[in-house]
Order: sequence, then C-alpha cells, then structure tokens
Amino acid sequence: MKVGLIGLGRMGKGMGQRLLGGGHDLLVFNRSAGKAADLEKAGARSVSTLADVCSGRDIVITMVSDDAALNEVALGSGGIRQSLAQGGVHVAMGTHSAAAIQSLASAHAAAGQTLVAAPVLGRPDAAAAGQLVIVAGGPADAVKRCEPAFQVMGRKTAEAGPKPESAIAIKLANNFVLACAIEAMAEGFALVRKYGVQPQVFYEVITEGLFAAPAYKVYGKLMVDQAYDNPGFTAALGLKDVKLALAAGELAKVPLPSGSVVRDRLIGAIAHGDTDKDWSVLAREQGRACGLD
Amino acid sequence: MKVGLIGLGRMGKGMGQRLLGGGHDLLVFNRSAGKAADLEKAGARSVSTLADVCSGRDIVITMVSDDAALNEVALGSGGIRQSLAQGGVHVAMGTHSAAAIQSLASAHAAAGQTLVAAPVLGRPDAAAAGQLVIVAGGPADAVKRCEPAFQVMGRKTAEAGPKPESAIAIKLANNFVLACAIEAMAEGFALVRKYGVQPQVFYEVITEGLFAAPAYKVYGKLMVDQAYDNPGFTAALGLKDVKLALAAGELAKVPLPSGSVVRDRLIGAIAHGDTDKDWSVLAREQGRACGLD
Amino acid sequence: MKVGLIGLGRMGKGMGQRLLGGGHDLLVFNRSAGKAADLEKAGARSVSTLADVCSGRDIVITMVSDDAALNEVALGSGGIRQSLAQGGVHVAMGTHSAAAIQSLASAHAAAGQTLVAAPVLGRPDAAAAGQLVIVAGGPADAVKRCEPAFQVMGRKTAEAGPKPESAIAIKLANNFVLACAIEAMAEGFALVRKYGVQPQVFYEVITEGLFAAPAYKVYGKLMVDQAYDNPGFTAALGLKDVKLALAAGELAKVPLPSGSVVRDRLIGAIAHGDTDKDWSVLAREQGRACGLD
Amino acid sequence: MKVGLIGLGRMGKGMGQRLLGGGHDLLVFNRSAGKAADLEKAGARSVSTLADVCSGRDIVITMVSDDAALNEVALGSGGIRQSLAQGGVHVAMGTHSAAAIQSLASAHAAAGQTLVAAPVLGRPDAAAAGQLVIVAGGPADAVKRCEPAFQVMGRKTAEAGPKPESAIAIKLANNFVLACAIEAMAEGFALVRKYGVQPQVFYEVITEGLFAAPAYKVYGKLMVDQAYDNPGFTAALGLKDVKLALAAGELAKVPLPSGSVVRDRLIGAIAHGDTDKDWSVLAREQGRACGLD
Repeated sequence: MKVGLIGLGRMGKGMGQRLLGGGHDLLVFNRSAGKAADLEKAGARSVSTLADVCSGRDIVITMVSDDAALNEVALGSGGIRQSLAQGGVHVAMGTHSAAAIQSLASAHAAAGQTLVAAPVLGRPDAAAAGQLVIVAGGPADAVKRCEPAFQVMGRKTAEAGPKPESAIAIKLANNFVLACAIEAMAEGFALVRKYGVQPQVFYEVITEGLFAAPAYKVYGKLMVDQAYDNPGFTAALGLKDVKLALAAGELAKVPLPSGSVVRDRLIGAIAHGDTDKDWSVLAREQGRACGLD
Repeated sequence: MKVGLIGLGRMGKGMGQRLLGGGHDLLVFNRSAGKAADLEKAGARSVSTLADVCSGRDIVITMVSDDAALNEVALGSGGIRQSLAQGGVHVAMGTHSAAAIQSLASAHAAAGQTLVAAPVLGRPDAAAAGQLVIVAGGPADAVKRCEPAFQVMGRKTAEAGPKPESAIAIKLANNFVLACAIEAMAEGFALVRKYGVQPQVFYEVITEGLFAAPAYKVYGKLMVDQAYDNPGFTAALGLKDVKLALAAGELAKVPLPSGSVVRDRLIGAIAHGDTDKDWSVLAREQGRACGLD
Repeated sequence: MKVGLIGLGRMGKGMGQRLLGGGHDLLVFNRSAGKAADLEKAGARSVSTLADVCSGRDIVITMVSDDAALNEVALGSGGIRQSLAQGGVHVAMGTHSAAAIQSLASAHAAAGQTLVAAPVLGRPDAAAAGQLVIVAGGPADAVKRCEPAFQVMGRKTAEAGPKPESAIAIKLANNFVLACAIEAMAEGFALVRKYGVQPQVFYEVITEGLFAAPAYKVYGKLMVDQAYDNPGFTAALGLKDVKLALAAGELAKVPLPSGSVVRDRLIGAIAHGDTDKDWSVLAREQGRACGLD
Repeated sequence: MKVGLIGLGRMGKGMGQRLLGGGHDLLVFNRSAGKAADLEKAGARSVSTLADVCSGRDIVITMVSDDAALNEVALGSGGIRQSLAQGGVHVAMGTHSAAAIQSLASAHAAAGQTLVAAPVLGRPDAAAAGQLVIVAGGPADAVKRCEPAFQVMGRKTAEAGPKPESAIAIKLANNFVLACAIEAMAEGFALVRKYGVQPQVFYEVITEGLFAAPAYKVYGKLMVDQAYDNPGFTAALGLKDVKLALAAGELAKVPLPSGSVVRDRLIGAIAHGDTDKDWSVLAREQGRACGLD
C-alpha cells in the first residue's frame, strides 16, 4: 500500500525498513535532514514537505517523540490535516498523551480523515526485526486498512477498541505497571540489603519464581550490578511516562496512588543528579531514602 | 536424620510427607488433635507434648501460622527452648516478623541452641510435591545440618546469610513486591477500563511481554474474571503480609512508600466487605476509588 | 501613579476600586465587555485594546485566571510585551505556574521591561477592603516602584526575593499547606466517626487548641455541617492549585508526597461527581474510601 | 473524692498536684521509687503496691507511657482489675492504642468495674497549671463521677461518647492532624527554599493568615531556626503516635494515606540519625529528599 512516514528516529527507521521489506510504497519525511539515507537506499523516496509525504497516501504514519512534535506535523501549517486526502488515515504510533490524541482525533474527523493511535511495545531492535507489539485504537475499518502495514512492522496487533485513546491507555498502563514494578523492586532491594542480604540472592529468588519475566530480570539485574550509567531508558524519560499515565488518569478521573509514589521517587532521583541514568536508578534513590549508599 | 515437626496445617503436612519419603525419622506434634493421621500412616510417630517432639531430634521444624503460635511453641512452658538439646537446631519455616525471629534467635542462643529461619515460597501443592523454594538464614553450619531435610522438601535452597532475619527479609520482600504488582495491575486495569478497553485485551498485552510471569498471569486473570470468591490468598492475609514487610522496614529503618499504598487499599477493600475475598480484589477496590463498579 | 489593570473579575474589581480610592490614575481593560461599569463610575477610564491599557503607564497589573489568559494578554499580538514602554513593570497578581512566570520574566526582560509576580492571599472581600496580603517577587527596584499600588490594595506586602517565581512558590506552598490540612482533617474526621464520635466534638477539640486558625475553623466547620453545596472554592479549583504546587515541585525537583495524596483524593472526589462542590468535600471522599456515607 | 494515681512522670506529677490543690484525698504509686517526694510534701500518701493504691478509692487514674505499662498495672498480678472494688472506675489518661483500651474496657467490665479513657491535650506545664484539655470517653455516669477530678486537672472536658475508645480516637486524630501539618509544612519549606525564598518570609506569610495557630507557629519556627536539638517531642515519639493513629485506622477500617506519608518520612529521618531530634526535623528529612541540606 501507499504509506507516508514521518519521524525517522531509531524506531521510525526500523519500521520504515520493515515497510519497504514488505513491498509497500514508502514516502518519508524528517524535519532534520540526512536521516533518510538508509531508507532511500532501501527504496524509499524522501520528500521535503509534509504536503508531499501525504500526497496520494492511503495512510500516513507518525513516529515522533512527543505531543508537541505530533501537533506540529499534524495540525501545523501544511501539516497532515491540511495535506492528507479526505478518507485518509493518520496512524500515530508514538507514545502520546490521551488528551492530545483525543483532540487530534476530533481535528482529523472534522477534516474527513481518521486518526488511528497505534503505540508500540518494543525497542528499536524489535522495530528493526518486525517484532513490535502494536496496540491499535480507532474505528474498525480504519484499523483494518492499516493491517498490511501492521503485519510487517509487528508480530502482533492488539485491538484496543474504536477510540484511539483506548490504545494510548493500554500503552500508558503497560509502562505504568512497569514503573511500579521497578519502584517496588527498588524498595525490596533496600529492605533486604538492610538485613544483610546480598542483592544477587534476592534477585535470583524473585526472578526464578513469581517474577520470572523481563520486567524484573532486566531491571533487577541493573540494580544488582548498579549499572545505571548506560541507560536503556532514563529517569527523565521514566518521569515523562509516569506523568503521561497520571495525566491520563486525571483526564479519566482515576487516582493512581502507586504512580504518585514512583513520580515522587523519580523526582528525588533527578534532584540527586540521576536525571540521565537508567531509571532502575530508583534503587539508588530508595537507598538514599533509608541511609544506604 | 531425626526430625521433629510442629504444625500440621496444609503446608506442614506436605512437608512431613516429603520428609518421610526421604527416609527421615519423623516425630510430629500438633496442638489440635487428629491432624496427624495421614502422616502416621506414612510412618511418622505422633507425640502429645512439645518436650516429646524435641526428644532426641537433630532438628525441630516449626510451620505455624504466626508469631504468637511460634512464640508459644518455642518459648512457652515446656517449649522448644526448654526441650531441645544443647546444640540442637530449631528451623522456623513459617512467615514471621523480623522482630520475632531476632528475639527468638537470641533466646535459643542463650540456651545453646541455634535458630535457622527458613521461610518457603510455594503453596501447599508445591509443599506436597517437594517443589518449594526454601530461603534459609542462619549460621552456615546450622544451615548445612538442615540440608538433608531441605533437599527433600524443596527444589532449591537460597542461602540468605548468617542471620536468620535475612531469610525473613527475602521472604517478606518477595511478598511485598507481589503485593505491589497486584496493586499496580489493579490501578492499570481501572485506567484502561475508563478508556473503554476490554480488560482481557490489556491482560494479554502485558502478560505476553514484560510481565510474562505468574505474578501477573495468575492475579491478572482473577481480575479479568472478577473471580474473587474462591480466594487463593485473602485480602486479610495480604494485609498481614504487607504489614510484616512494613514492620520489617520500620525495624531496619526503610520507608516503603509503595507498601503504604497497598496497605491503604487493602484496608479500603476490607472496609467495603472484601476481607475474605482473594486479594486480587484490589482491582475492585481501585474501581470503587474511581467510580467504577 | 499611572496604573493599567487587566482582568476585572471579582478580585480585579476590588483591587481597581482600592487603586482609585488611593488616588491612582487607572486605565482598565477586560476581554469581556461590560465589566468596567462600576470602576468607570469610580473614576477609571475603560479602554478597548491592550495597547491602550499600557499606554503611558508606570505599571500594568494583570489579575487573570490562569496561565493561558496571562500569556495571551502578555505575549499575544498587541499584548503587554509589545505595548508597554521600556522600563515599564508588569505586575502579575494572579496565581500562575512557576514555569509560566519564569518564561514571562525572560520575555519581558528581552523587551527591556520587568516582571513582578505579586500573587495575593485573600478572597474578593479582602480585595475590596484593601486587606490582601501581597507576596511580591522581582527585582528590588521594580517591587519598590509598585509600593504605592500595593499599599492601597493590601494590608501587608511580603518580599519574596529578586526572582518573580519566588513569590509564586510562596503562594503555591501556602495553598499546598492548606490542601494538606484539609485532607488531614478529612482523614481525622473519618477516623473519629468510625469510633462513634460526633464530628462537632472533634471539631471543637482541635480548633480551640493547636489548630485555632482559619484553615481548620472554616473548613472543619464545612465538614461538620457537610455543607459542600455552596462552594467557596471547588474541588476542581483545589485540584488545579495542588497541580500547580506539584508542577512547581517538579520544576525545582522537590517531591511533595503529601500533595500527591491530596491530588489522588481530589481526583476521586471528582470521579464521584463532586467536581463543583467545596473542596472540603474531601471529607466525603475520605468517607467513601472507608465505607462511610 | 478518694483518688488513686499511678504513674508519676512529668504529666502525672502535675496532675497529682492539681488533685491535691483541689482538696482530693490522694494515694500515689510509682514503679520507680523516689518519684513521690514532691507529692508527699503536698499531702499525698505514697503506697508501695497496686493493691494499696486502689484501696478504698472512688477512681484510680493511670498516667503511664504506653500500652505495656498500662496492661501491667491494670491486668497484671495484683493490678487494678484485681484490686479495685466493684463499681470502681479506672481512668486511663495516657495515650494508648484503641485496641488496648477496647480490651481493657472488657476486662474491667467483667470484673464489675468501669474504664474511662481520658487522654489529655497539653504538655507538662499545662498539667501543672490545670490547663489540660481532657477528652473523656466512657459510660456517662462513670464520666460524671470523674468530674470533680477533671475539673481541677483541666480547663475543659470534651465528652467523646459512651465508649472509651472514642476518646482515644479523638486524641490520636488530633495528634495525627498535627503530624500531617508538620509534614506539609516541611514540604512547603523545601519548595520555597528551592525557589530562593528565605524560610522566615514563608513562615510569616502562613502564620499570620490561614495558619495562625500553635501547630504552625511552634513547629514552623523550629524549622526556620533548624532548632531540632532540644526536642519538645522527638521523631521517635512522633512515629509512635502516627503508628497509633494508623493502627486505630486499621482497627476501624480507615485508610489514612496522609499518615502513611508522615510515617515514611519519619522512618527516613530516623534512618538518617534524627531519632532523638524534635519531630519538626521532618523539614530536614524533606530537604534530604530533594537534595537540599
């Protein structure tokens, strides 16, 4: 199918390669020049305006970093809303706020277009390998139209329901549960350390039983090794995600007290200079809170 | 080896069967009569006093429900401290408070005995199958003496260190991390439900990825099915466990803010009549907190 | 002195009357027509553009409801930044976010103007009576220039320091401490009610002793009377204020865990339909959380 | 009337002097010898057994430090329950747990006696001056019998209702609201400090307005002066009080999330070595949590 792709960061590049590999006709656009070279080699055409990247497309995918970038490419002058044909589908695949997605869905609807929110679970390596889990929310026929693209980008599509923000809720809730798991482990490590336990022993006990899953194995290991300096995901990004979940909670009137705890500890970590450390640094922050470290 | 066993609840019975199956010489005692019948058939001798169950034993195992029961059989008149020979080992395998274990260790040491705390991970079916994970804390030689018993009762022994309370800390921290996971999931379900998501969809997304582990699969499923009426572990017991963790935290001077959140929500669930429901009922309590249900 | 005033809500009107009563030369502007009638009778001149209200003024005061309104009148086309003479002082007297005030201060500085943040403590009746407490932050000479105006609007000016956001911090922290006091009282009332105590008795005990102050007398009385229907300050506004404090905390890297508790309870109250009730309705929300009401 | 008094700490002594000054016939008992000298000079008779101090008394007052001491003197061998005549009244004036008071009330009732719980608000200087506020809970006729004693010990008696634990709930809730106020102020001070505000300025703003009450004036001043070394009430005692409130909440099924926050911060303060500092040291602990100090 004819696909436009906006946002050629590490995730977007991998997704673009998968689309090309799947035989799709791909136009790409990035605000920063020079990011399209690899995709061009693989068969994409790079264009220099948002209008061009929407031209003649069945769907236009955005994979941008935040709400501001999304609103700029979608609602700004010459943006997707102005450039995409009536009946076209904008597939927003970044992690955005529920509020921004709701507003954008209305804006597209008013222009005779449809917004599908399709945030993904998985990191750049999963994107490159077509192993993302895609959580898709939007009108059923619009989601169906995206399937050929989803099939080559992901290993699975979860259907969230007819509202785009439903997909956002799932993605944010997933990250929220992860943040809470990291915080709980951080507290658990502090507790056992104060009782003279080697962290590795606690790690092995939990991760071979109830918690034999990546959330605990990956982040627990970082805590055992105190390996916070090469972040997979920083404390600053963690705070951003937790705040998105809390904001989604507020919008839908859901108190999230566990999330407030994580938010407070992340702010504490940042106050102590760990802004750019891996967010498993919550274990160090918890250590500070009880006089360890 | 010559083993005494005190406490013939569902866990104790399974452990006793495994000890007999492993060829150990077993004396059993239970405060309530009639619980020993199965074990007697399998070769145990049932005695009627604490003195008798300690007589000539290398180790005496207790598997009792709480600190009060432990203190009664260990420190009460005619109890283990008075009846076990010098050099004997008391293996406390229930889930107790760190404070009680510390006191008891001192009391045994003053009597020339050794306390090993060896709480277990696993339910009665795991006990019956010898598939427990045993977390053992105590002086290395005393723990070593227990190995023949541990080997038939569990599939693995984690060594917590020379202090009995270290093992308690691991056990309580494990349960604490679980309680926090259940609470976080409960909050996550409320969030997605408010955005119109079918709980089953969210469940599948999280449990096939980062959270593909029993803690989430078992309790998440109960939340999806709202199957709170046949509890594996009640809200009341959950509160007891969380309180043990918080108390251990206080004793070692470790604030556990995520635990405070779970404690508050469990108290809320109990206030609303869910005392004897499965503790995954936290999802219903979280629903109440945001106007669902 | 020559004063411009933007924002003629209940607070702004009272402040305008005081300025006129103090002999100042007053130009007024309001986006909604017809609000200036009373002030015109008292001697003010009403103008229809932001440029006019800035014309020839020593200081221009804004008393608008939120950041969006502030940014519109200050930074929008023809706004204060464009219209106020170099050397002029913009006095922002509403309750704004620390971030907005920081940005605005920079914007004015770049235009050769000075921003003074001067949020006030007190309600419309205090404004009308000149009994506000004014918390002023900004360069000392700019604050000094405002003194003739402050003297007739308030009974006291507290000097927060040379940065405008310092004044904002004091105002937000004051409201934050109040929110926490209301929440704590709400929890306290629930506790005593569950023990069969008449709320009035508890109210009398606390407000004649340690808590003999308006924060407790006013809001405690509303709780005793369950008089939530004629709000002095709604749950929605309370949430807005708490969020401003939390955001200020995040900006300056200060976790505010008590604030997170209030935020969660206010969201709960709103989820249960109490959005437009007086924010002392936190007592009812706390009652719900423990099965009362 | 004929009064027995058990517990001659700083509070008990002051109360004893007041009883003597009011013309009451006073027997006194203290476990530690030598504490009765001043009261003997003033006309009290000191006795050496609990049986003697109950002999022929209309009421027996206890003013002891905790539940353990209360249970020892009331329920121990030769204690109040065994020694006080049928129809006698035991007035427990210390700060105890709701659970202990409930149990003790039942024990006394079974012996034909009545328990009145009458915890007090006020420090030793108020006790010496007869300026305590007495919160009395118990059957109306029993409370009425105590009135002649209450009138000379306090400036006011608040009647909590027919259940002794109702009085406890009021006292604990009062202290709870105080603990939350101190914590909120501590957070507020951290916030304004991070924005460059002199603490004294914030102190003056809040204590001359909404918070013009001892709770804020006394503890806010200590925070401004960082005067934690001569404690009026230590962090350790603060934690004890907060725990009593949380336990009372749990017993009556009332989550108290603000209390959990204070508990966590107090544990943190203690972890950092501030156990014996004034509990306003929460401001320092909050400072640590955000990288100040």
